[in-house]
Amino acid sequence: MAATVTIASGATWQEVAADRQKYRDETLAAIEPALPDIPSPPLNTVSLAKDILSADEIKITESKVEELVPLLAKGDLSALTVVQAFLRRAALAQKLTNCITEALPSRALERAKYLDEYLKTNGKPIGPLHGIPISVKEHISMKGLDINAGFICWVGNTAIEDAHILQILWNAGAVFYVRTTQPQTLMHLETSSNLYGVTTNPYNTTLTSGGSSGGEGALIGFKGSCLGIGTDIGGSIRSPAANCGVYGFKPTAGRLPVAGWAGPAAGEEQILPTIGPLSTSFEGIKLFTKTLIDAKPWYNEPSLLPFPWKEDDFFKGRKLKIGVVWDDDVVRPHPPVTRALKQLVDKLKSSENVEVAEWKPYKHDFAWEIIANLYFCDGGAEEKGLMDKSKEPLRPLSDYILNNPHVETHTIPSMYAATVKRDAYRTEYAELWNKTATSTGPNGEPEGMVDVILSLVGPGVAPKIDTAKWWGYTSQWNLLNYPALVFPVDKVEITKDEVKESHSPRNATDKENWELWEKYGAEGYKDAPISLQIVGRCFEDEKVLQAFQIIQNNTGIPFVE
Amino acid sequence: MAATVTIASGATWQEVAADRQKYRDETLAAIEPALPDIPSPPLNTVSLAKDILSADEIKITESKVEELVPLLAKGDLSALTVVQAFLRRAALAQKLTNCITEALPSRALERAKYLDEYLKTNGKPIGPLHGIPISVKEHISMKGLDINAGFICWVGNTAIEDAHILQILWNAGAVFYVRTTQPQTLMHLETSSNLYGVTTNPYNTTLTSGGSSGGEGALIGFKGSCLGIGTDIGGSIRSPAANCGVYGFKPTAGRLPVAGWAGPAAGEEQILPTIGPLSTSFEGIKLFTKTLIDAKPWYNEPSLLPFPWKEDDFFKGRKLKIGVVWDDDVVRPHPPVTRALKQLVDKLKSSENVEVAEWKPYKHDFAWEIIANLYFCDGGAEEKGLMDKSKEPLRPLSDYILNNPHVETHTIPSMYAATVKRDAYRTEYAELWNKTATSTGPNGEPEGMVDVILSLVGPGVAPKIDTAKWWGYTSQWNLLNYPALVFPVDKVEITKDEVKESHSPRNATDKENWELWEKYGAEGYKDAPISLQIVGRCFEDEKVLQAFQIIQNNTGIPFVE
Repeated sequence: MAATVTIASGATWQEVAADRQKYRDETLAAIEPALPDIPSPPLNTVSLAKDILSADEIKITESKVEELVPLLAKGDLSALTVVQAFLRRAALAQKLTNCITEALPSRALERAKYLDEYLKTNGKPIGPLHGIPISVKEHISMKGLDINAGFICWVGNTAIEDAHILQILWNAGAVFYVRTTQPQTLMHLETSSNLYGVTTNPYNTTLTSGGSSGGEGALIGFKGSCLGIGTDIGGSIRSPAANCGVYGFKPTAGRLPVAGWAGPAAGEEQILPTIGPLSTSFEGIKLFTKTLIDAKPWYNEPSLLPFPWKEDDFFKGRKLKIGVVWDDDVVRPHPPVTRALKQLVDKLKSSENVEVAEWKPYKHDFAWEIIANLYFCDGGAEEKGLMDKSKEPLRPLSDYILNNPHVETHTIPSMYAATVKRDAYRTEYAELWNKTATSTGPNGEPEGMVDVILSLVGPGVAPKIDTAKWWGYTSQWNLLNYPALVFPVDKVEITKDEVKESHSPRNATDKENWELWEKYGAEGYKDAPISLQIVGRCFEDEKVLQAFQIIQNNTGIPFVE
Repeated sequence: MAATVTIASGATWQEVAADRQKYRDETLAAIEPALPDIPSPPLNTVSLAKDILSADEIKITESKVEELVPLLAKGDLSALTVVQAFLRRAALAQKLTNCITEALPSRALERAKYLDEYLKTNGKPIGPLHGIPISVKEHISMKGLDINAGFICWVGNTAIEDAHILQILWNAGAVFYVRTTQPQTLMHLETSSNLYGVTTNPYNTTLTSGGSSGGEGALIGFKGSCLGIGTDIGGSIRSPAANCGVYGFKPTAGRLPVAGWAGPAAGEEQILPTIGPLSTSFEGIKLFTKTLIDAKPWYNEPSLLPFPWKEDDFFKGRKLKIGVVWDDDVVRPHPPVTRALKQLVDKLKSSENVEVAEWKPYKHDFAWEIIANLYFCDGGAEEKGLMDKSKEPLRPLSDYILNNPHVETHTIPSMYAATVKRDAYRTEYAELWNKTATSTGPNGEPEGMVDVILSLVGPGVAPKIDTAKWWGYTSQWNLLNYPALVFPVDKVEITKDEVKESHSPRNATDKENWELWEKYGAEGYKDAPISLQIVGRCFEDEKVLQAFQIIQNNTGIPFVE
C-alpha cells in the first residue's frame, strides 16, 4: 500500500483528503461481492438494501444483537457469515450516505474465522459478544490504523494500540469491521468534514444523519451495523441516534472506558466527554454497557468508577414517575416531535404503573451559556490551530460553535469561576429534582421523586444539512452529567405533521429554527425518524434503562418500524 | 459584641489578628468554670488534664465516640454534661497548644439542652450522633460566624449557612462547640498563621501538631474532642492525625460532602480536596463516615457519588494482602517510624489471615512534581493576592509551598497538558497494582491483588516547627485519589529510638530531613506519637477500614495508649 499522504509530507489539505478518500474506497472495494452502481438513489434509501443484498444478508443484518448472540454462540450462524453480510450492507450504506472512513474486511474476516475456529475447538463462545460485528467512530484508536479525529493535519498519526474500550469488546468476542465518519472538530450535531464531506440521513438524504457520531447514526440507521460506538459531549451519540431512528445511550461520565480516543482538549475536565453505544435494539445497548462494566475497566483506567452494573429492580412495587419537558422554553420544537411526544405521553398516562408529571425546564438558556463557554476554555485556539496547520477551511458548523458568543479565552482564574458557576447550576437543578419528593427518608433524604425526565432530543427531527444549531435539548444533560437514552418512536408523515402554526420568536435561534419548519414543513422532513429521550440523575444509568423497559412495555414503541 | 475589626474597615493586619485573638479569648472565657493559669507547662502537656479537670470531666472526655453514643442515646449521660466537659478540656487544650479559633459555648449548651429535652420527650435519640460534640476546622462554614480560611483579608466574611456536612451531622444529633486553627493558605503540613500564631503538639510542644487540620490534631490529641472534621489535599487530615496520635481518614474525593467550605482556588478540579474525620477512636471514624453517606448527600451535592456505604465482608474466606512501603525512595524516614513499621509488619507476618509483600514505590518524586505543579495552576497568584490585600507577611511554609520549583503559572493548554501527565501517572500506578494479581477473573479482570498499601505518614514523626517540608508520604495518595487511614501505633522513646546511622543524601529535601534527625535525635522528638497509614485504591474506602480492623485485631495496635 502507498504511504499515507500527509501535511507533514508537504501535501495540501485537498491532496490529503483525496488520498484518504481513495484509501477508503480501496478498503471498500475489497468487500466481495462488489456492489452495483446506484446512479440515482431515492431520498429515502433504506428500501434499497432489499433490492441489492441477498435474502440471507438481509436476514442477518436486520437481526438484532440479542438475536445474533445466541445463534453465534451455538454456531447456528458463523461469525464469518455475519460479518460478511454486515460488510456488504455497510458498503452499501457508504454509497448512499457517506458514513464510512475505512472498511476493515481483511482484519474482520480473519477475526471471524478465528472466532469460528474457537467455538469449534472449545465448544463455547469466547465471550458475551462472540462474533458480533461492531462499528467504531474513527477517533477511537485502532492499533496500526490512522487516527485523525477529523483533522486533516492529524492524518498520518497511527494508533499504537487499541483504545481500552476496544480491548474489552475484543476480549468479549467483537469483530471490528468498519470505522465511521465524524465532523471537523468533532463538535457539530451533524457530520461534515473536509476529509470526507457530508454524511447524510439514510431515511432522507436531504437531512443530516446528526453528529458528531453521524457515521454511526447513518450506518446503524441503514442497518449496516447492529451495534456501534459513539462519543458524546453535547449530543454526539444522541443526535445521530435520534436522527436515524436507532437507540443511543450516553452514560454518566466515568462509567465506560474512554482511554485511547483522540481529539483536541485532552486534559479538559470541565465538561466530561462520554462514550457509549448506538444500536438497532435496546437490548444491544444494554448488552454493550453491561459487558464493559462487567470487565471492571476501572482497574486499568483509574478515572472510572468501580461500581458494578446494578441488576436490582428499581421499580418493584411502585410506579415509574416521569417528568415531561415539552419545550425547553428556549427553542420551540417543530410539530412532529411534539406530536410524537404527545402520543407517547397519552399512552403513558393511561398506564397503571406509570405516573406522569410536567417538568418545568430550569434556565436551559443559561445552561447553554455555561456549557458553550466551557467547551473551549482556550477560546478554541487548539482547534483553530489544528486547522491552520493544514490550511483546511472551517466548515460552517465549526465556525458556528467555535465562534459562538459564549466562547472565551480563559485564564486559570476565569475558568475556575466558570466551573463554580457550572457547579452552582448543577446544585440548583438537583434541588429542583429534590423538590419532586413526596416524603423524607430516615436520614432526611428526599424520597418518592421523579425517576426520569422524558423529553425531546432536539427542536425537531433530523435537520437540513448545516442547520443543526440548537444543542440545548442534548447538551443540557452533558452539563449536568446525567445519563440519557434516545429511542425511536415514530416517523414524520405528511398527513400527520403538515401543521402550520404561528409563533412569535423568543430569540434568534428560536426564530431560525421555526423558520426552517415554515420553509420546509413536513414534506421537507418526510420519513425522518422521530425519537425521544429519557434522562436520569448522575449515575442512575441502570435506572434509566429499566425505566425505558417499562415505557416500552406500556406503549409498544416504536409506533412504526 | 463589638464589630469585627477588618482590613475593609481600614485596620492593619496586626489589628485584625489582635481583634480575632481577643474575640477568641472572650469566647473561651465564657466557658465555666474558668481554668487556672498554667505558667510553665511541661513539653508533654497531656498529663495536665488530670491535674486540672474533674474526674467526671476526665472520664467523659477520655471516652470514645462508641462509648458515648449509647450512654447519650439512653440518657445515662446528658448531652449537656458531655459538651460541658469537652468545652473545658478544649479550653485547656487551647492554653497548651493554641488550637482553637473560637469556642461556641452558648450555641453548644443550647443545642445540648435541646437534645436532652428531645430525648426526654421522644424517648429516643434524634439520630446516630445524638449529643456527640464535634469540633470543626474553621474554614468549614458555620452560619452567622466568621469564615476566613486563615486569610486576614477574609476576616469579616460571615457564613450565610452551615456547610453541607454540618447540616447532615446536625440532623444526626451533633453538637458543634469549637472551631479550630489552620495555617495561612491552608497549605502547610503544620499550623501557623498570622491570625493565631503557631499550634503546637500536645505530646511535645517543641513539635508541630501537623496541618493543615492541625487545630483538630492538637485538640483531639489532647482529648479536647473525640471527633472532629478536617480537610486534606496533600496530607492535611493525616499529618495532624499522625503527629498527634489519633485516627484520621481521608476518603476518596466524591464520597463526603464538601459544599460550603471556604478557601482559595474554588473551581479547581485537577487535585480534588477532600473532607474527613479525625477521632480518638477508629469507631469514631467509621460512624462519622457512615452517618454522612447514609444521609445520601449526593441528592443535594451532585458532585458526590451516589453509592451507599458497603457493609459486605471484603475478606471473607481469604487473607488480607498488604503491600509495605518502607521508604518512598525520595526522603529516607527517621528511625522511629521505620522501627514502628517493622514492629507492626513483624506481627502481621505471623498473622494467619494476613499476607505481607513488599511494595516498590513508583516514581514518588515525579508524583510530587505533578501534584505540586497542579496545586497552584495560577502560579499561586490568588493566594499571594489575598495576602497582599492585608499586607500580612508570608509564613515560611507558605513561602516554601507557593514558591516551590514545580509551581507554574499555567495557561489553559499547559494545565491540560499537566492534567494529562497526572492521568498517565495514575494509569501507571494502577497497572503496578494490577501486576500484583495472582489470577484473572471471568472477564479478564485482575484478581487476588494486594488489598492495601501499608506505609508511613511522613519521613518521621511530628516535625520541629517550620520544618515539615516533604509531603510525599501523604500527597502521593491525593494525587492518586486513593483513600487512606492514619492510625496510632507507638511513640518515640529514647531507649528504643536513639539510633545513629549514616546516610548519603539523595537530594536536598532528603538531606534536610536527615540532618534534622542528626541534630535532634530521639531526645528532640521525645514522646511524639508514631503513626502509620494504610491506603486503598480509588473508592475502596470501606475496604481500607475493614483492612484496618483486621490489622488491629491481629496486632493489638496501638502498642502504647
